[in-house]
This record gives sequence, C-alpha cells and structure tokens, in this order.
Amino acid sequence: MNPGTFDILATDAAGGTLARRGVLHTAHGTMQTPAFMPVGTQATVKTLEPRDLHELGVETILGNTYHLFLRPGAEIMETCGGLHRFMGWDGPILTDSGGFQVFSLAKLRKIVPDGVRFRSHIDGSLRMLGPVESMAMQRVLGSDIAMAFDECIPYPATFDYARKSVAQTIRWAGMSQEQPRAEGQLRFGIVQGGEYADLRGHCAREIVRIGFDGYAIGGVSVGESEPLMMKAIEASTPDLPWDRPRYLMGVGDRIQMVEAVARGVDMFDCVMPTRNARIGTAFTRRGQYPVKAGAWKADTRPVEEGCSCYCCAHFSRAYVRHLLHAGEILGVRLLTLHNIHRYMETMREMRAALDAGTFQDYRASLWRDLRGTDPPSA
Amino acid sequence: MNPGTFDILATDAAGGTLARRGVLHTAHGTMQTPAFMPVGTQATVKTLEPRDLHELGVETILGNTYHLFLRPGAEIMETCGGLHRFMGWDGPILTDSGGFQVFSLAKLRKIVPDGVRFRSHIDGSLRMLGPVESMAMQRVLGSDIAMAFDECIPYPATFDYARKSVAQTIRWAGMSQEQPRAEGQLRFGIVQGGEYADLRGHCAREIVRIGFDGYAIGGVSVGESEPLMMKAIEASTPDLPWDRPRYLMGVGDRIQMVEAVARGVDMFDCVMPTRNARIGTAFTRRGQYPVKAGAWKADTRPVEEGCSCYCCAHFSRAYVRHLLHAGEILGVRLLTLHNIHRYMETMREMRAALDAGTFQDYRASLWRDLRGTDPPSA
Repeated sequence: MNPGTFDILATDAAGGTLARRGVLHTAHGTMQTPAFMPVGTQATVKTLEPRDLHELGVETILGNTYHLFLRPGAEIMETCGGLHRFMGWDGPILTDSGGFQVFSLAKLRKIVPDGVRFRSHIDGSLRMLGPVESMAMQRVLGSDIAMAFDECIPYPATFDYARKSVAQTIRWAGMSQEQPRAEGQLRFGIVQGGEYADLRGHCAREIVRIGFDGYAIGGVSVGESEPLMMKAIEASTPDLPWDRPRYLMGVGDRIQMVEAVARGVDMFDCVMPTRNARIGTAFTRRGQYPVKAGAWKADTRPVEEGCSCYCCAHFSRAYVRHLLHAGEILGVRLLTLHNIHRYMETMREMRAALDAGTFQDYRASLWRDLRGTDPPSA
Repeated sequence: MNPGTFDILATDAAGGTLARRGVLHTAHGTMQTPAFMPVGTQATVKTLEPRDLHELGVETILGNTYHLFLRPGAEIMETCGGLHRFMGWDGPILTDSGGFQVFSLAKLRKIVPDGVRFRSHIDGSLRMLGPVESMAMQRVLGSDIAMAFDECIPYPATFDYARKSVAQTIRWAGMSQEQPRAEGQLRFGIVQGGEYADLRGHCAREIVRIGFDGYAIGGVSVGESEPLMMKAIEASTPDLPWDRPRYLMGVGDRIQMVEAVARGVDMFDCVMPTRNARIGTAFTRRGQYPVKAGAWKADTRPVEEGCSCYCCAHFSRAYVRHLLHAGEILGVRLLTLHNIHRYMETMREMRAALDAGTFQDYRASLWRDLRGTDPPSA
C-alpha cells in the first residue's frame, strides 16, 4: 500500500459523533487509528527497547527533531543511516518539527523571518532552526511522518499576537512543503490559532490549501482549560479534509483523547505515561495513583489488578514501590511498561468499540471510570 | 537432587592446577561452576529483569542482606513471601551476611560481642546486625545460600588486629551456624585473616571444624595487590574440604577469576560488570573501553564486534554512546546487558575448557587477550 493511504474503516455516524476508525499506511508499516504514539524524545522511549514496544503493541513512536538536531546532530544521524536504524525501530516514526521545543527549551531565542535563532540548551552554541533546517533534519532522520515547522502560540496570547503568529506559521508551512523529503516520507501541516476560533479556521483553510498528507492541531494542552481545548479542536477540524488523518499534538489525558476522537481526531502523542512513570505514578483503568505511597509498602497485589502487562504479571506493588524508593532504574522501567500498556489497551478498546459500533458506550464507560460521571453530552 | 549436593565433573589435575568443573544443587536449581553471580543489591540486578537474566544465562544472583534489612526490611519481605517471590526470580540466590556492608556503609558503627551496632545510612536509625539478626534476615529472604556473619578486615591491618578479628569471625560463624535456617537453605562459612597466611589457615580449619555446606574466602579485593590476593587464596584453600564449593567474595576481574579457579575456587560475585556499565565502560573479549569517548560518536559497529548479546545484535556503538551522553537509562541498561553477557561468556568458555581438558590453554588465551602477556606461571 502506498505511504499516505488512509482507509477509514468505520465511523460513529450512528452514534452522532465525528469519531472514525482508520488505518494509515506508512513506509514502515501501518498505524491503526485512533492511535496513541509514545514519545521517544532522544531516540529512545525512555527505559524501553524496541522489543518492549513491539510486545506492548506500539505501532508508531514519536521522535523529537529539536533534541536530535542538537544531539547527536545531523551528521552522526546521517552516518548511522537515519533514526530507524540508529534506534533499532522498524515501525513507523513521526517526528515533530522542533518548533515547540525551540520555543520552550532553547535559550535566547529570536524569531527571524526564516525561523528561530537560539542557543542550544545543551552546550550554548548558536543555532538556527526554521522550515528549511527542520525539513532537512527530518529528511536525515527519515521519519515516516514529518511535521511542518510552526510556532506554538503560548497561552494566553493576545489576538494580535496570535494573528501574526498564525500568518507566520502558514508562511512556514508553505516553505516546509517546498523542501525535499525522504523517500516515502509523509508530511503533516499544523493548525495553530490559540483560543481564537476564527484564526483556527483561517489557519486550517490555508494549511489545507498548501496541501499535506495529514493535519495536526497544535497549540493545545499549553495551560488552557479543557473546554477551551475542545473549542480549539472544534474550530480546527471543520475545514480539514475528512479523508486525511488528524493528529492532536501533545494531548494524552485519556478523557481528552476520547473527547477529541469524538470530534474527529485520529492520532495522539504525549509524555504522560512515560514521564509519570518516572515520578512513580501508575495509570490504571480507574485513574492513577502514586505507587510510592506508604499504603502499598506490603501490598502483594500487582500495580493494577487484572492487568496483563509484564510488570503486573510478575511483580507486586510492594516490589515496584521498593524499587522506586531505592532509586532503582528497574522501578521506572516496570512502571513505564505498565503505563504504556494501559494506554495501548485504552486505544485498542476504543478502536474495538468503533469497529463494533459501540463508541458512545465506551466513551461513557471511560468517563465513569476516570471521572466518576457520565460524559457532559450524554 | 538434595540442596547442597556438589558434583565435581572434571578437574585440571592433568594441567597441574587445582581447577575444578562442578555443579552445585540448590533448592532453586543448579549452578554450574566455575560460576559468576551478578549482584542484585536491592532486590534487582540494576536495570535488569528476571527474564533478562535468564536470557543471559545467569543461574545464580546475589542479594545484599544489609540493604534489604534496612529497606524494605524483614517485615515487608516476610509479607511478600521472601526474596525470590519479591523480585520474581526463580533461580538460586546467594545472600551475603551484611558484614561487609555494615563495615563499609553504616554510620557510627560499634562492634559489640554479638555483632555491630550502627546507624542506618538511609534514615539514621539505630540498628543491630550480628549472627542472630543476619541469619534471621537471610531466613526471611529465603536465599538458597546464606553466608555466616563475619568481619571483613580492612587492608592494611596489623597482625594483632587481624588475629583478634579472626577469633571473632570464628565465634560469629559458630553462632551463625546455631541459628535456624530456611527450608533447603545452604550456609557457607567465611575464611578471613587478611594478608596473614597463618591466620588464614587457622581460620579455615576452625570454620571447617564448625562445618558448612560451602566455604568462602573473604577479605580480598579490599585494596591489596594482586599477588597478595593470590597468596590469601593459596593460604585459605588447603584446609578446605575438596568436595565442597569455594566462593571468592567480591572478585570480578577476569584474570583474577581464572587465577582463582586455577587455585581451586568455584564461585565469584562482583559489581564490576553492572557498576562499570553505569559509568559507560564496556567489557570486551580484549579488555574494556569507555563507550562515551568521542572516537565512537559516528561508529556504526556494535559495542563489541562479534558479540551476540541483544545490545550488540541491534545497536551501534554510536547509539549507545548517544544514550549515555543524553543521560538515557536505556544506555546503561544496554551496556549492563552486554557486560553481563561478556562475563557469562567468559564463565561458559572456562567451564567448556575444563570439560575439554584445555583449561591451561584457555587461561593463557585469557591472559593474552586481557593482559597482552602469557600467564606468569606458564
């Protein structure tokens, strides 16, 4: 199947939502949607090996262009044959553009017409990242899905700032799309516009006019309220082509994901399951809890009862707690395995519900399990 | 087979050394000797899971009584069903007595007739560890091989200090042996005596008089020269029964191990392969090298060419170097997998040489590979 082919296998039209069940074909295999993509910032999903990811049922992972641009850098990455070969991952990889990180991590950044000048947060060296550099780096990385270079607007931002920034994001999207790409590489455009619905709509139409293989909704989960996030999604999607995949960037709250799916979103990425594992938080079917808490010190139950992951099948909560308190790397690794498993399970269940025409039931059950209430719209 | 049965399958009598090829039966399976036991201080061989250890061919691991006594403590360990169940490891476990750690790690330690009073290095609490407490803790841990409680003499130590300490170690060995043990648990006595050959001989005879399932040589690798270490081994073994396993504590240099095997030693433990992985050192057939070095930044060869471990089969030196520089846990884990594999390979080769009657050839090849010279005695 040609990279970029996106088959919509089922919809929730009967349920009254915009949810879709699809499959996106890439140069390194397929991605079943709705999909959650674990984040592998520095060429590794933290603590995990490719064989772990395969075992967990992960199809697509995310790599960070900003981080890999600075370390190990384009030259080493090219010598090593691109990101797939470098990290030993043969499945699909989506790389972000580096836009988000250059605004959140880099020092002394200055926006210039063709991108951002900044100092590396690693060694202080002067660098430049814009549409040209980002596309070149993503070409070297050889990702299956490259993202256009954009500015992620902070929240809150004035309408005037947002308007100018959106104009720039559109211009940068055009520049991005003019750059050569790696063989079979797809390219997604990004809709920005902050909380301003008309800017979102304008941006979406312009990005679609340029034309991409898929479309992302950026600039959410940056501190705004959940209703504002949903409004930003609702303002971004109507102008996106139905037959192309939609990717909500940086959102990993399970309720926010199911609500975004109900609004027509297909793909997600977030550091939540991995980052929370590192601070000792376990995600379960019914929420989340701190495994380090004293209540579990002699608890022989697994991290999550009924869970089939490697961590829960072999170890007690007391053991994982002990490892975390003792500062043992294995504790973080086991909890990462569990959290990613929980996320993959959620997406598998969501897809199965869409296949079975029971998405609204699943959505309601997720709300009850995680928020203790029915969905607001139900 | 009864726990404690030790079958000597071959010797190197023809080669003129005291090397033996054996198999020790424990309540959780067999240990082929000569054996290297990776260290799992806090109920985990750092970064590794039980499935990794099995895949690496590890048979026996070591647990630290001192650490587990302080955290998670006897009560939690008992509730959780002992160390095997706690850490999900179904193979043999050897636990040290805590003697070494209480002298090297604890604060404000004071030797009293029945053990050592000290403050926990974790929370400063006042604790007591002696033969009674150590045996009780090892009983709770349910290790397959428990070690008698001893004092590891520092180096250098005066003859007078060493003499008094040995007397105490012998008395503590007697007290240790009087304590009840877990079902099927073996107990090893420890020969101390520092650099003083007559004290070593005296200690060995007294420990053997008490009678244990196996015998350890302690108080080596504490700063003394390699010739002194060999003399300490040579002074300790003549009085040990031939048909019981001998364990050289804390030695993990491969040349020192093969030389100890030539002197009749069967078992080893050391943090070298795991600890060195954490500082970025790879062990190879021909020595060791720092993977973080700039020379490897774009080197697409594996950490060790020709190695079949998971790390070398899937990743480049440049990738592992990148992970280590980026502070990624996976880098330490991959290097730990490699280093343990290298150690297991060395022991497999040593056993195969003993089976084939070519131990002297193997010993010489190890010297040439690791020290660039023939063995001094060859």
